[in-house]
Amino acid sequence: MRIALAQINPTVGDLAGNSRRIVEYINRAKAAGAELVVFPELAIPGYPPKDLLLKPQFIADNLAALKSIAAQVHGIDVLVGYVEPNPHPVGRPLYNAVALLRDGAIASRHYKKLLPTYDVFDESRYFEPAPAGEQNNVVRIAGRPVGLSICEDLWNDEKMIPHRLYHENPIADLHAAGAEVMVNTSASPFVVGKHSFRLALFASQVKQFGKPLVYVNQVGGNDELVFDGNSVVMDAAGNVLAQAKDFEEDLLVVDLGKPAPSTGKPVLTPSAAQVQRFAEQTLDLEAQQKSPAAIESIYKALVLGLRDYVGKCGFKSVVLGLSGGIDSALTAALAVAAFGKDKVVGIAMPSRYSSAGSETDAELLARNFGIEFHTIPIQPAHEAFERMLAPAFKGREPDVAEENIQARVRGAVLMAFSNKFNHLLLTTGNKSELAVGYCTLYGDMCGGLAVISDVPKTVVYRLCKHINQQVGRDVIPRNTITKPPSAELRPNQTDQDSLPPYDILDAILHRYVEEEKSITQIVADGFDLATAARVIKLIDRSEYKRRQAAPGIKVTSRAFGFGRRMPIAQNYNQTLPKHGEASPRVE
Amino acid sequence: MRIALAQINPTVGDLAGNSRRIVEYINRAKAAGAELVVFPELAIPGYPPKDLLLKPQFIADNLAALKSIAAQVHGIDVLVGYVEPNPHPVGRPLYNAVALLRDGAIASRHYKKLLPTYDVFDESRYFEPAPAGEQNNVVRIAGRPVGLSICEDLWNDEKMIPHRLYHENPIADLHAAGAEVMVNTSASPFVVGKHSFRLALFASQVKQFGKPLVYVNQVGGNDELVFDGNSVVMDAAGNVLAQAKDFEEDLLVVDLGKPAPSTGKPVLTPSAAQVQRFAEQTLDLEAQQKSPAAIESIYKALVLGLRDYVGKCGFKSVVLGLSGGIDSALTAALAVAAFGKDKVVGIAMPSRYSSAGSETDAELLARNFGIEFHTIPIQPAHEAFERMLAPAFKGREPDVAEENIQARVRGAVLMAFSNKFNHLLLTTGNKSELAVGYCTLYGDMCGGLAVISDVPKTVVYRLCKHINQQVGRDVIPRNTITKPPSAELRPNQTDQDSLPPYDILDAILHRYVEEEKSITQIVADGFDLATAARVIKLIDRSEYKRRQAAPGIKVTSRAFGFGRRMPIAQNYNQTLPKHGEASPRVE
Repeated sequence: MRIALAQINPTVGDLAGNSRRIVEYINRAKAAGAELVVFPELAIPGYPPKDLLLKPQFIADNLAALKSIAAQVHGIDVLVGYVEPNPHPVGRPLYNAVALLRDGAIASRHYKKLLPTYDVFDESRYFEPAPAGEQNNVVRIAGRPVGLSICEDLWNDEKMIPHRLYHENPIADLHAAGAEVMVNTSASPFVVGKHSFRLALFASQVKQFGKPLVYVNQVGGNDELVFDGNSVVMDAAGNVLAQAKDFEEDLLVVDLGKPAPSTGKPVLTPSAAQVQRFAEQTLDLEAQQKSPAAIESIYKALVLGLRDYVGKCGFKSVVLGLSGGIDSALTAALAVAAFGKDKVVGIAMPSRYSSAGSETDAELLARNFGIEFHTIPIQPAHEAFERMLAPAFKGREPDVAEENIQARVRGAVLMAFSNKFNHLLLTTGNKSELAVGYCTLYGDMCGGLAVISDVPKTVVYRLCKHINQQVGRDVIPRNTITKPPSAELRPNQTDQDSLPPYDILDAILHRYVEEEKSITQIVADGFDLATAARVIKLIDRSEYKRRQAAPGIKVTSRAFGFGRRMPIAQNYNQTLPKHGEASPRVE
Repeated sequence: MRIALAQINPTVGDLAGNSRRIVEYINRAKAAGAELVVFPELAIPGYPPKDLLLKPQFIADNLAALKSIAAQVHGIDVLVGYVEPNPHPVGRPLYNAVALLRDGAIASRHYKKLLPTYDVFDESRYFEPAPAGEQNNVVRIAGRPVGLSICEDLWNDEKMIPHRLYHENPIADLHAAGAEVMVNTSASPFVVGKHSFRLALFASQVKQFGKPLVYVNQVGGNDELVFDGNSVVMDAAGNVLAQAKDFEEDLLVVDLGKPAPSTGKPVLTPSAAQVQRFAEQTLDLEAQQKSPAAIESIYKALVLGLRDYVGKCGFKSVVLGLSGGIDSALTAALAVAAFGKDKVVGIAMPSRYSSAGSETDAELLARNFGIEFHTIPIQPAHEAFERMLAPAFKGREPDVAEENIQARVRGAVLMAFSNKFNHLLLTTGNKSELAVGYCTLYGDMCGGLAVISDVPKTVVYRLCKHINQQVGRDVIPRNTITKPPSAELRPNQTDQDSLPPYDILDAILHRYVEEEKSITQIVADGFDLATAARVIKLIDRSEYKRRQAAPGIKVTSRAFGFGRRMPIAQNYNQTLPKHGEASPRVE
């Protein structure tokens, strides 16, 4: 049985463009002699379509696209994801569906059973689960009974996910109904470390039922999510027979039955602790982020997420502020990797508080990458604001109000370049800053995409070193990496005037945001109570800034944005560790 | 049977504060001779707690609060909402629960069955529905069997909601289990026209089962949502026996059995068309907005939402820009109503393009309301930016880049006042502008709360006229109401240079956003195809601006923000009406 895995990069909502791409891959699969070609989950609308699904016209147009694709199918079977209306008068109005296309028509329709509704997923908002017992997801293809499941349907594994959200296991049902081959169509977004977990989970399911698995994932960036591809064919013993590219479109053709040569990629078995953490939706970035492979995967995810966001929004070039610091240096490097040096514009905006080094570091970076570079000193506007505000601010000491003005002047300059030349403005803030609110709303937070807003500062350093290693020289200037980080909004300011050291901050941030640990648990992990309490308070109190932040690219198990929905006007003060409880000092 | 309805205003997450308030109301109810006091849904954590629910410590602290309240209960029965962990190893980890407190202890625990997961509601993200058949929500109180339900449990009514989302009707189950009185604890947010629909729905349920209903709603603003209170006791024939205040805390004590004097408020029966629209989550604002009662309810909702957002965020005063236009005038009037004139600061920021009338209108408004007023001309910063950007922009015609600079200078001035004096900055943009992107990111969109961002421009006018009528004079200057709206970012600019007339724009906006109508349907409603296509394109293309907008106060059935989750980088182009199809011109 010859199967093609069509790992495509759809654009959300682009029914015409996605259909053209699907037909092109069908023809390529047919030319490669495949008997079946499989597309990702919701390939026709693209994943996630979000509230486009509430538009009846969108559903109708998606059905028309399916019909039009079906009419072009001859001499091959096709499994493609789309949205099907629920014909029953009770229940949610839609199904997350896969159609089997054959001989110019829709041969059968199959629905998802397990609907993820956590983190970035909202499927219960739209979809009714497949009615129990009402339909059979085992279909005969190329003479063999094939069991169809959609993404989450594969993820209710007792051994791998101790706290199970779902009462059914659709894979067990397919097994019971006589499926000999399992096919899963997915749209599973990237999180660092997730793919090795996926392989372990697939192996667990495959071994449990003794059936080979064909897993087809979406690839590409859609808003905050990057889909990493990595589609896989696994034999019944849990060996990877073939794996598609990561972070690229691919058509992988595999003969099931006669094993392909092994890719040599071992299936990793996660530790019990890793399994536990994943079950809590908290893959262990902290452990992962030290591995070179993890850093490489984050790098690739950011480049793809950046390229697709900008391109799918219809922009051809980007602009960003270059402060001479490491965050803007990393963002510039990612932009050059995504678009090429001719599509990236860097702007230095020195102020009276900028060090001499900042401007030369910014210029050196721009020269190293060969990008267009401008220097716009902000002193004239800075002074104008001071004069304008002097009467009202008379008798008051300078404070954060004056610091923020500088950041906002820079934001306005960058937005003027964006508006004038139609460059998309990239925001350069990292996750650590955004967490504690060490950033200026309408200032350095300006921009259409916050490229590294899910990357903690300690990982920013690792990524920069990784880039210099790959290039083989200090394309990101050494001084940018080694100097103490500073916002340069007042004389001799450094980040550590206001914040704990970044390794401490990031470790607390990881525990509080990704692991949902309490302050008591964080203190038990060895952190100072006062520091932990301060970081947590800063995180909680900065929610209002994050609500107005640009979308960022998710790389950790809990990014700020769509997957973390906190109230703003709230007043939760958690129970503190009891007086006298062990509180070892880290600082 | 004497029942107290404790219509309280909790703060989300404030377990200690909410507990104190609950105990105070228990004591007041007891003093009034009540045998039972009923609190709203999730009264202990406050509704909606959102992702605070993902913190195990928050759940533990909420249980400790429940226990502590229970210990203080003597001589009265209490029904109070809280969050209960799901003890089963499979399923979502929490229940949306109500506890019966009696004699210093928790007598029983009861769980919600129907979990709203649409619009602003995300309950399937957190909660497991009450296990079918596993528990009985009928409890004996004051000698009578009382049937307990939570909010949405009451809303699966075949007659009123033709397209039902749920397969069960919990109220029918309570009826079957012998309940003689129905008690429903709710957190049902305000939407214009919703309360009359509620009364019709309650009457339908009450008549179907022949049982009286005690409905206790939350009151107060929590982020984007305003809960209107309006708790109700209805007899078995569908008559309103008593109704609590709207938009205020209240303790309503009612003797069930001996009917209280009628409030005289008739139960309205909605038309079949209204029922149909509500079923589609689209209450008919367009029809509603013309009624004085609807305008009054929107006014009250905005004042309460504004007061609570600012207060619950810990601010004591607000600042806003006064352009002399109608949006900032309305926002200022709402702020004075919410906080008093001494807590509101208005700032006029004239530019070279401001008309003489703008400044005098702004000043007159400030004087009429008696608020602190500053004038900060923006010319110095405006010129400074022009000089700074001149080399880079050489040879280019002035365009939207230059216009936006002015708006961003104003935003920076306002934020400087906010930072310096700790006033929360109010954004003054309306829904029509935000829909079509007729607003500047990081400019007039700056602010912590977008007070009227769910109020269409045509309703802005109605609200201003309503305010002047209530006051009995033109406290909002007549010229502000009558002059053509303008952003004043270039000479002689008016909104209608760029946009269709607001009555046309708002009518299309209503159909597209609230009713999810297609362009074909909108044209069939009598609108010009080119105008409808242009408005829809503007709405779709402005999603990136709205993603970074301040939270706004929801008053319509579909507000931008949390309840409308659109992808940004998407490319849906809906099918247009067929060539030659009837397309009557409205413009």
